[in-house]
Amino acid sequence: MSSSDFRTQAHRAIDFIADYLDTIESRPVLSSIKPGDIYNALPAHAPDQPAALRSSVPAEWSSIFQDLEQTILPGLTHWQSPNFFAFFPSDTSYPSILGELLSAGLGVQGMLWLTSPACTELETKVLDWLGELIGLPTEFLSDGAQRTPRASVGPQMHSSTPHARNGGGVIEGTASDATLVALCAARHRVRTQHDRTQASSSPRFAIYTSTQAHSSVIKAAMIAGLANSPEDRTHIRLIDTDTNFALDPAALERAIREDIANGFTPMYVVATVGTTSSTAIDSIEQIAAVLDRTGCTHSESGFGTWLHIDAAHAGAACVCPEYRSMLTGIAHADSIAFNPHKWLLTNFDCNCFFTRDRRSLTGALSITPEYLRNSGTDSGAIDYRDWQIPLGRRFRALKLWFVLRHYGAEGLRSYIREHMRLSELFESLVRADDRFEIVAPRTMNLICFRYRGDDTANKRLLDTLNASGKLYLTHTVLPGVGYTIRFCIGATATQERHVRDAWMLIQDATRAIEIKTV
Amino acid sequence: MSSSDFRTQAHRAIDFIADYLDTIESRPVLSSIKPGDIYNALPAHAPDQPAALRSSVPAEWSSIFQDLEQTILPGLTHWQSPNFFAFFPSDTSYPSILGELLSAGLGVQGMLWLTSPACTELETKVLDWLGELIGLPTEFLSDGAQRTPRASVGPQMHSSTPHARNGGGVIEGTASDATLVALCAARHRVRTQHDRTQASSSPRFAIYTSTQAHSSVIKAAMIAGLANSPEDRTHIRLIDTDTNFALDPAALERAIREDIANGFTPMYVVATVGTTSSTAIDSIEQIAAVLDRTGCTHSESGFGTWLHIDAAHAGAACVCPEYRSMLTGIAHADSIAFNPHKWLLTNFDCNCFFTRDRRSLTGALSITPEYLRNSGTDSGAIDYRDWQIPLGRRFRALKLWFVLRHYGAEGLRSYIREHMRLSELFESLVRADDRFEIVAPRTMNLICFRYRGDDTANKRLLDTLNASGKLYLTHTVLPGVGYTIRFCIGATATQERHVRDAWMLIQDATRAIEIKTV
Repeated sequence: MSSSDFRTQAHRAIDFIADYLDTIESRPVLSSIKPGDIYNALPAHAPDQPAALRSSVPAEWSSIFQDLEQTILPGLTHWQSPNFFAFFPSDTSYPSILGELLSAGLGVQGMLWLTSPACTELETKVLDWLGELIGLPTEFLSDGAQRTPRASVGPQMHSSTPHARNGGGVIEGTASDATLVALCAARHRVRTQHDRTQASSSPRFAIYTSTQAHSSVIKAAMIAGLANSPEDRTHIRLIDTDTNFALDPAALERAIREDIANGFTPMYVVATVGTTSSTAIDSIEQIAAVLDRTGCTHSESGFGTWLHIDAAHAGAACVCPEYRSMLTGIAHADSIAFNPHKWLLTNFDCNCFFTRDRRSLTGALSITPEYLRNSGTDSGAIDYRDWQIPLGRRFRALKLWFVLRHYGAEGLRSYIREHMRLSELFESLVRADDRFEIVAPRTMNLICFRYRGDDTANKRLLDTLNASGKLYLTHTVLPGVGYTIRFCIGATATQERHVRDAWMLIQDATRAIEIKTV
Repeated sequence: MSSSDFRTQAHRAIDFIADYLDTIESRPVLSSIKPGDIYNALPAHAPDQPAALRSSVPAEWSSIFQDLEQTILPGLTHWQSPNFFAFFPSDTSYPSILGELLSAGLGVQGMLWLTSPACTELETKVLDWLGELIGLPTEFLSDGAQRTPRASVGPQMHSSTPHARNGGGVIEGTASDATLVALCAARHRVRTQHDRTQASSSPRFAIYTSTQAHSSVIKAAMIAGLANSPEDRTHIRLIDTDTNFALDPAALERAIREDIANGFTPMYVVATVGTTSSTAIDSIEQIAAVLDRTGCTHSESGFGTWLHIDAAHAGAACVCPEYRSMLTGIAHADSIAFNPHKWLLTNFDCNCFFTRDRRSLTGALSITPEYLRNSGTDSGAIDYRDWQIPLGRRFRALKLWFVLRHYGAEGLRSYIREHMRLSELFESLVRADDRFEIVAPRTMNLICFRYRGDDTANKRLLDTLNASGKLYLTHTVLPGVGYTIRFCIGATATQERHVRDAWMLIQDATRAIEIKTV
């Protein structure tokens, strides 16, 4: 394909994307195709001959765009639809798409500093920007350069622990990767400390998170060899939650004390800021206090049991100072991760992982075979391959850079605040209709509600709504509540009218169900 | 950013990419910037105000493109340069860039079948296409539909094991991910078999790979909790290689027998087809025979110790029938992975992982919390989240689909064959100059050679060449050989003149060193 052909077809692709996003509202949010429909609609074998031999390049791409339109698009769930209220969002934006495009075009690979210094250094820089924007203590930022704190960052953000120059941020693929690399760092650190003190026996590790934590915690434990199955509780303690579905610190303390008494070493705690089911917020401060009280924090080093904060969805909201209280106590955590690819206008994949103990992270993941040795590594430059599971890595910092430059801190804050305003609106609509009840505290942009009927009625309501194609909602089951409908307002394109229309659809569907039931 | 602004700026980005790739030859391949240069050239903080408030959208993007050109590009190592002969390549192509662009624009998330059926089904289909193209037995393909074998696939490709409908392919991020998920599947399967037979004690696992295997095998073991450090050999056996740097099957057999005698359970073997140092090829057939002879293959199920084939770089060559002999014995393997993002014109990241035992893979990685339950999953559709470490996933099948459609099987074969021809040419040039020696058998597109001097002279030669900016080479250290220069011909844009020019540069640099030494 010549560069001239590329220019022509890429301009067409750009228009395809812009047209798609301009008209996305007209598409059913949730695809109605059946398993196998698309697989079977595609040819059984790859073509033998180059397209150029079968037809011209323009004809070839006309056929590709036609297949995209006719075969692929009807099989998509339209995550960018303003009527997508399911799961958590996976926001994109035009500046971010430009970043992905340029990253693909440059085609560089940032596994080592040397294999593209700009890929590493831009990442370090934008992570420092972003860490500052969500109010992280400076210990979580890199030592890439001397930094002057900006005036707007409050004094509580500058803790005075002696671990400066051991922190920094990195882009991981997903929050699941972040949870797993933090577990590896935790194990490395606790094992190293253990070896120093009681070299004779191998520690028996224990991991703690709440019953409402994301499934990636158990998955990480399975991958790391600390659980044989999702149900295996040899090393995992799922701590009960309080009436707000947040981890109960007293229950955590009991579990830790019991484990210590039984010869276990508390190794890793994952606190969730914004659970997937209901955006409940575990108290970092109280969890850190439990770790202190139970002797899990080494007094001399400030390090001990690794406390990781999974703020995958909620972290984005912390660009607004008024939401930063959900990170109170963060100075006591060892790492935190959140996904700009969820709620900060950045294409999947982009998980931002910050740690104040990068030496434990790279200690857990670093191997340098001869073919990767180079002067950059030897001089102490950051090699991000040692901060992640994979070796290779794309130039993902570009899209984040573009988003931060284009929107600026204030633009991102306005974006979050508008979703919060719409969520408050939606909550008030639900509360005003006594056929419904709000079943979990609304902490941000997720409303958990139920029709005052049984689980079957709620499930029927959800299925009816999703089958309409006019919106997409998902559900969860909350302890003591049962089947719960989740309504999350976080898509880039969602406006007030979409929220009001969705509420009307919900009311209509409810009426229809009530008539049928009667 | 309006869609109209996006169209304008994206067209500009397209031209930026095409201009960049059209003129890439004029840039120094390896950046000469120093650590910190780029970090320090960027502002200390993210901008506060949206760009639109500071200037117009066109002015904003003029400034972004200027920064890209002036700050970022000088800090890149130009992986797409025709003079990039380092590591293994990371090929891109225009059709693939279009795929990445459209994937970013559609912004869908394929964690579950339901969250975008087309994302899953297109992936299953193109993996079936690709598996067939590299000659995998049908057991490694999906059961997505009844398949009619094409005439060109030889009869030896249809083994008759009874495990059909348990196979399939998936796109993982990287070969490191593939090595890790295969390890998890291996552990799950061996543990399940062990539990059935000797429920009383927990198995002590052993993992085998050659001393020349990729560092990701040890890294996977560290992540999986089977090694405390890169040097820890409690569970890992690094098997010696023969004079071709391929795993010595006799040494493997001794190690396995010794382990079994000592109460270890052989759990996972990674054979490398195309090692990173020298593209040595481990014999799958002989390794499988060792597993059979040592009782590691269960006679009733055909399954036992998991044999994973790491063909990260070399797998691409198997689109040509004449190179498929390197996969002889593949019917006895449990999984194989290779990277179209290395040598098959597809943007990073795109690792293709095939297994004939997907139940063990999903058994190792599947967890279904309530908020992910849905009718698609319940009906048995593929949920690719259960085949990988992360939960979320991009629509990466698009780029692979475009590459396969655009080039066709024959186009890909021509591409590989031209690199092979150039490699043969380069090898002959080196052999004709008796100041040099070829130090490893050339199995494909990598030439390992040395200047007949000491390691220091070879290192000086490499550094001189790379400092010129005119090409980029890397090194390795081969056992019994020492410092070795690697010359890999695999970049999309490389033509014969680049290879001949590189050889002239090498000769010139050698003369300069010899004069200095004299």
